[in-house]
Amino acid sequence: MNYSVKGFSAGAMHCGIKRKAKYDLAVIYSEVPAVAAGVFTKNKVKAAPVQLSKKNLKSGSVSALVFNSGNANACTGKDGVRVAGMMAGKTAEKLKLKPKNVLVCSTGVIGVKMPAEKIKNGLEALCGKLSPGKLVDAAQAMLTTDTFKKIILFKFRLNGRKCSILGMAKGSGMIHPNMATLLCFLLTDVSITRALLNKAFREGVEDSFNSITVDGDTSTNDTVLALANGMAGNKVISSTGGSYRLFSAKLKEAMVFLAKLIVRDGEGASKFIEIEVKGAVSKAEAKRAAMSIAKSNLFKTAVYGADPNWGRVVAALGNSGIKFKEERIKVSFGGLMVVSKGIELPSFSEKEAHEKLAGKEIKVAVDLGQGKVSSKVWTCDLTEGYIKINAHYRT
Amino acid sequence: MNYSVKGFSAGAMHCGIKRKAKYDLAVIYSEVPAVAAGVFTKNKVKAAPVQLSKKNLKSGSVSALVFNSGNANACTGKDGVRVAGMMAGKTAEKLKLKPKNVLVCSTGVIGVKMPAEKIKNGLEALCGKLSPGKLVDAAQAMLTTDTFKKIILFKFRLNGRKCSILGMAKGSGMIHPNMATLLCFLLTDVSITRALLNKAFREGVEDSFNSITVDGDTSTNDTVLALANGMAGNKVISSTGGSYRLFSAKLKEAMVFLAKLIVRDGEGASKFIEIEVKGAVSKAEAKRAAMSIAKSNLFKTAVYGADPNWGRVVAALGNSGIKFKEERIKVSFGGLMVVSKGIELPSFSEKEAHEKLAGKEIKVAVDLGQGKVSSKVWTCDLTEGYIKINAHYRT
Repeated sequence: MNYSVKGFSAGAMHCGIKRKAKYDLAVIYSEVPAVAAGVFTKNKVKAAPVQLSKKNLKSGSVSALVFNSGNANACTGKDGVRVAGMMAGKTAEKLKLKPKNVLVCSTGVIGVKMPAEKIKNGLEALCGKLSPGKLVDAAQAMLTTDTFKKIILFKFRLNGRKCSILGMAKGSGMIHPNMATLLCFLLTDVSITRALLNKAFREGVEDSFNSITVDGDTSTNDTVLALANGMAGNKVISSTGGSYRLFSAKLKEAMVFLAKLIVRDGEGASKFIEIEVKGAVSKAEAKRAAMSIAKSNLFKTAVYGADPNWGRVVAALGNSGIKFKEERIKVSFGGLMVVSKGIELPSFSEKEAHEKLAGKEIKVAVDLGQGKVSSKVWTCDLTEGYIKINAHYRT
Repeated sequence: MNYSVKGFSAGAMHCGIKRKAKYDLAVIYSEVPAVAAGVFTKNKVKAAPVQLSKKNLKSGSVSALVFNSGNANACTGKDGVRVAGMMAGKTAEKLKLKPKNVLVCSTGVIGVKMPAEKIKNGLEALCGKLSPGKLVDAAQAMLTTDTFKKIILFKFRLNGRKCSILGMAKGSGMIHPNMATLLCFLLTDVSITRALLNKAFREGVEDSFNSITVDGDTSTNDTVLALANGMAGNKVISSTGGSYRLFSAKLKEAMVFLAKLIVRDGEGASKFIEIEVKGAVSKAEAKRAAMSIAKSNLFKTAVYGADPNWGRVVAALGNSGIKFKEERIKVSFGGLMVVSKGIELPSFSEKEAHEKLAGKEIKVAVDLGQGKVSSKVWTCDLTEGYIKINAHYRT
């Protein structure tokens, strides 16, 4: 597959941040300024590049992204702020842009000084070698504990013009996004106003990256960005009509796809779990209930063991803080109802329920029996693999 | 050690709730009515015995506790309510009490029907065989995945009279108490008013059971009870003078001791971790920050691997929701400062810091540099053992 979008080019390299010879530095460039939307971590401790990108995003116009993996540039003090500034400055200098139109992202270990010289020298070389075909290399360059790269390309037509949305993401641990997850870029050549890009983007984030959890830990570096450079030549989307609906649906589809990939690549994960809470009185309550289940270590280990311990689902629901009537609860595993009216069905078969949890794709549904609103969230199981990966991440 | 308190007797047996021939049913009896205080889980899903005990506690006078392990009697519908009522009723009948002066507790698997006949027959036999020396058997009868029993006896004098406080607790997984943890009973022969018992009790709970977490999951059955039967014959404690201060200090000491034992016996735990947050502007903020660290899977796995990944401490702090200035943060492991002014100390030695985390007793201190208030909480590391225990709890 040819992962390209009109007007965007990229490059990636190993500049020496990672010990192993893997890509750790990349630049993405739009030949015309793109309107942009972004969300960032709500962790009170924000990495230096997050602070810089939040500020630069206010210009509303973005021409380049520069990012590295292997070092989060978080908890690095004034030195970290200088290095993030250097990354924007050097990229701007080489590509003849203003630094304020360059966004910076970093991902990796927290609290380690950035190797500024290596990055500076890397950017000197890299910025002269960008090409449209290397967006896939950029997707490779953002990975840390990820076991595969996460990229998606959608093609569609607006006013007869060919349009594309390319999304790339990374994330595997420290995944419990609050507004955003660790690095996701969505690049499109669609022509759209900044306000409507922002609207479509925020709605998409809520139903994708804000609907997943791996381990309940919100990173210091979470960043999701969308860039629209307008080069598809469609009539600029400036109202919420048919073109907007098509574009926003495609954008959300790309975000949900990438968010699910992050969960599938969750550290140590052996199973992908979809949790749907139905029958809620509001979307917020449905989501809060679903996330409470998705965050429960006990629930996640039970799924790992294919143990149909539905009590842990109900206990997690009880801890969610939402109001509900226990005697109305229904729970099902893979379409098999195990609980009705808050208690185990007389027909409950341990063996049959176990089989529903024995596969790699697990569906858990809870019906609160109170309203008509539902929400889906995604998570993975909790295994010995997660422990192994995280017990020795630095050392 | 002779675990006894004046006026209290007990008995325990295997009635058949557990498959293995281990104690699973017990009764504790006070020969004179005791004033009582209690706190219960804040999980919205409350087990049938929790609902009953909350109601019965309102009478303010308790003569007996009846409890079982192996089945939580939670999510068991009307049948569960009937069985909890039968347990109080049968115990009252045999001991010639009113059912409303009997409290009931259950712990074990959620959602499984209680074997009512076995329990009823058990109580018929058991209530006739209570003795002062069997309180230690009762402590044994409350265990589930616990690997050792948790009991403490303090002796002291008030107005020259010998007084005792005996505490027993159980808990190992699904430990993230919110008001209370899974079964802890404090028995004392001290004479005290109900109001002051309640005051001492609630202050103690806050600094003990509400300051520990094993896995972030709040149980459906959490219950802590204190019974004071007055048989020591001290002058009744009716003001917050010296006697109250002595008694409340001893009561808190017993609760902290038991709460720490629960953490030490945390499912799969290999290390005991104390987290102290200092320099906060309020106790509530200090505790919220400390608990955010204690709940972080990433922090807990890093401690397991003795990986001095202090970035995870700071990231968890950033997720706590409290306000602080990153550039004021200090972090130390086992007395060794690793972070000052929010960044890694130049003198940081990976090897030295690793050694501080290599033992079985880990201390982590964070100084927010904002105020003068501190809070301590306790947790354990997250290991493959936790996964193994919980992947197949039912099956």
